[in-house]
Amino acid sequence: MPQTMKGVLAPVVTPFVDGRPDRARLSAHCRWLLDRDCGLAVFGTNSEGNSLSVPEKIDLIDALIEDGLDPARMMPGAGACALPDAIALCKHIAAKGCGGALTLPPFYYKDVSDDGIFAFFADLIDGVGDANLAIYLYHIPPIAGVGFSLDLIERLIAGFPDTVRGIKDSGRDDTNTFAMLERFPGWGVFPGNETNLPAFMKAGAVGTISATCNVNAAGIVDVYKNFDAPDADVRLKRANTVRGTFSRWPMISAMKAAIAHFRDDPAWAAVRPPLLALPESEAEALLAALKEIDYTL
Amino acid sequence: MPQTMKGVLAPVVTPFVDGRPDRARLSAHCRWLLDRDCGLAVFGTNSEGNSLSVPEKIDLIDALIEDGLDPARMMPGAGACALPDAIALCKHIAAKGCGGALTLPPFYYKDVSDDGIFAFFADLIDGVGDANLAIYLYHIPPIAGVGFSLDLIERLIAGFPDTVRGIKDSGRDDTNTFAMLERFPGWGVFPGNETNLPAFMKAGAVGTISATCNVNAAGIVDVYKNFDAPDADVRLKRANTVRGTFSRWPMISAMKAAIAHFRDDPAWAAVRPPLLALPESEAEALLAALKEIDYTL
Repeated sequence: MPQTMKGVLAPVVTPFVDGRPDRARLSAHCRWLLDRDCGLAVFGTNSEGNSLSVPEKIDLIDALIEDGLDPARMMPGAGACALPDAIALCKHIAAKGCGGALTLPPFYYKDVSDDGIFAFFADLIDGVGDANLAIYLYHIPPIAGVGFSLDLIERLIAGFPDTVRGIKDSGRDDTNTFAMLERFPGWGVFPGNETNLPAFMKAGAVGTISATCNVNAAGIVDVYKNFDAPDADVRLKRANTVRGTFSRWPMISAMKAAIAHFRDDPAWAAVRPPLLALPESEAEALLAALKEIDYTL
Repeated sequence: MPQTMKGVLAPVVTPFVDGRPDRARLSAHCRWLLDRDCGLAVFGTNSEGNSLSVPEKIDLIDALIEDGLDPARMMPGAGACALPDAIALCKHIAAKGCGGALTLPPFYYKDVSDDGIFAFFADLIDGVGDANLAIYLYHIPPIAGVGFSLDLIERLIAGFPDTVRGIKDSGRDDTNTFAMLERFPGWGVFPGNETNLPAFMKAGAVGTISATCNVNAAGIVDVYKNFDAPDADVRLKRANTVRGTFSRWPMISAMKAAIAHFRDDPAWAAVRPPLLALPESEAEALLAALKEIDYTL
């Protein structure tokens, strides 16, 4: 089986200034994450990745690499409803030497068949035509409305063993995650958050790709590295307390409000529609709740 | 209130050859539709519109106009998850003099607020900055997973009375359609299919945008033009028989299979993944069912 990426990755939140992605702030936040041993799943759901156009994503990948960030630590979101968009993104990701491409199934049409999704990935991989392409499937049916069944995953691995390297599982169904780990041993399964990470690690997970890495990178890396330690549950509880607090607000806007506050940089609070920044009173309530748990960024 | 488009429009099916949209076949099918007094909602759901990239859509709009088709009769799909994509499409649609832009709400994030969708449209209209832009909202929550509440529609009309001209309502909820017609008299409400068209026309609808126009343009125009005739129910029943037969198969693939057969042009059967063409046995069953109702294209 080919090598898989491992460890803790953040779906890096995307800063906006005047409605456009801000390269300097994004690079700085990526560096902050890497300094905490946290990889870069830029353009994930919590990155507002699907609110960015294909040219914006391509430009940002180039900018981050130009700014000296290691592409091998990047797993940019590459999913799209339209096959040519997914091909363009994956081509660029592979050509630039990124560690992987985090790829949603096409998500506009619902109730599509496993055969149809398989055909999409077959055409995608053929259209990219680059042996460097490493695809990580992105399973998030609660938001995408379309997901990967276990049978489909098996067919994709069998069909493209060198390319289909793993999955981010944000299905919010622990039973299904355990079933994945059991059925595909040695394959790159990343649970979509840290809430149950030690148990998943013991069952063979390779790490996690979790929103809250943006605001708790060190804490989640600590859970990952010590998943088998005697005090693993204490470390997990600490991380889950942070996550639980942020979860009381819309996650993306809440994380950005916290970053804006702790970096003393109000521009960080901005999101792109259809998302909305936290109203001031809600941001204050969030900061009060964070103070109660002695949180700091 | 500004003028609205009216009548019967088809979400024009998109022919593919070697995986790419085929200009010649698309132009010919558009001409066939216009000859039957059916307008061109290219890039709708049944056009596999969200399986096309922004550059593909822009190129096809230009090609159709170059081929002599009247842009005033076109209402291209312009929805996108990413605001810059929606702006690029709507800018082109307005600049080329198209009758309207059929615009989905951003559909990746679910449970977004009315405020967030309003902000998206406000930024879209501001970003296009063209008084020629005529937006028709595209309400299809069963597929998009995000829709327009009546309150949001009211706010959009009030905020942008010259731009937000109407809606395609594919919500599959007749009660909500009647509520829309009652609440926004004189506004451009297009029910998303013909199954109940005479009743909606009597309540103030301006026409319909329906998938089955691709295979029953004359029949649906007949229902539209005679909605108040004594034999309106007979005409409607005829159209509904055609629709009911196609509905027994996945609609897009079934319509394309029928077009391929009746035009003796197998290339028409192709769809783009994640959709799949009808297997041969299913195409044969469809043709047999069409024969039973004396259908011909």
